[in-house]
Amino acid sequence: MDSEIGFILDTRLANDCHKVTDLELSHVLLMNDERYPWLILVPRRKDIREIHHLSTHDRNLLFCEIIKVSEYLERKFQPIKLNIGALGNIVSQLHIHILARNANDAAWPGPVWGHSTAVPYSAIQLERLKKDMTKAFI
Amino acid sequence: MDSEIGFILDTRLANDCHKVTDLELSHVLLMNDERYPWLILVPRRKDIREIHHLSTHDRNLLFCEIIKVSEYLERKFQPIKLNIGALGNIVSQLHIHILARNANDAAWPGPVWGHSTAVPYSAIQLERLKKDMTKAFI
Repeated sequence: MDSEIGFILDTRLANDCHKVTDLELSHVLLMNDERYPWLILVPRRKDIREIHHLSTHDRNLLFCEIIKVSEYLERKFQPIKLNIGALGNIVSQLHIHILARNANDAAWPGPVWGHSTAVPYSAIQLERLKKDMTKAFI
Repeated sequence: MDSEIGFILDTRLANDCHKVTDLELSHVLLMNDERYPWLILVPRRKDIREIHHLSTHDRNLLFCEIIKVSEYLERKFQPIKLNIGALGNIVSQLHIHILARNANDAAWPGPVWGHSTAVPYSAIQLERLKKDMTKAFI
């Protein structure tokens, strides 16, 4: 689409995550850290750093996609709490973290950002999760 | 309003923050930490822990209020980055943090949550900020 012209996924996001699928506005990425079910939405728009810098149309799409991913994570993982965050202090390209927390996870009850080194998924875990997520988001 | 019946602000949020004003859905609280311009939206709805548990009507109100507060913080403080977060690992009552970050602030580039002890505002700072915010949100 024209509105995607010039969009390039930040290399740090690309390196830390696996691509799951595309929603109408956003790439859906899976953080490569088996300790938390952790998805990231990256709106395919060039040079956007903040949610309120999106057009009204794109904001509405993003909010719908945040809800969609939240509902999936709750249904699939029954977390004690979801954490949603748009930070961008290190990678300024707009991206929204949505992850499922549990009382026995590595960072609980603190935030996951900057907590400790990721523990990558195995190839089998990854294959299974990506398949489930892709199906859920069609 | 009927939909507010049974809503009680969590005492930890009440203790850590100052009340600024009310928007259509949410209380607007100011975190009592002079190191970051930090507002918190608390939807006045009983027993809600997650954004996607709100009704569609309330979700839309919340998203508009997040945008309104984001625009205010950007206009007033010209931050290098906004941070928006709905965590709730410690206080489960739904509340959304929206704060202005700068490269010389205490926690930069990490998240502010759980970073270090708050530095309270002086009475004069507080009075001035609350007045400005109340005016901005009318």
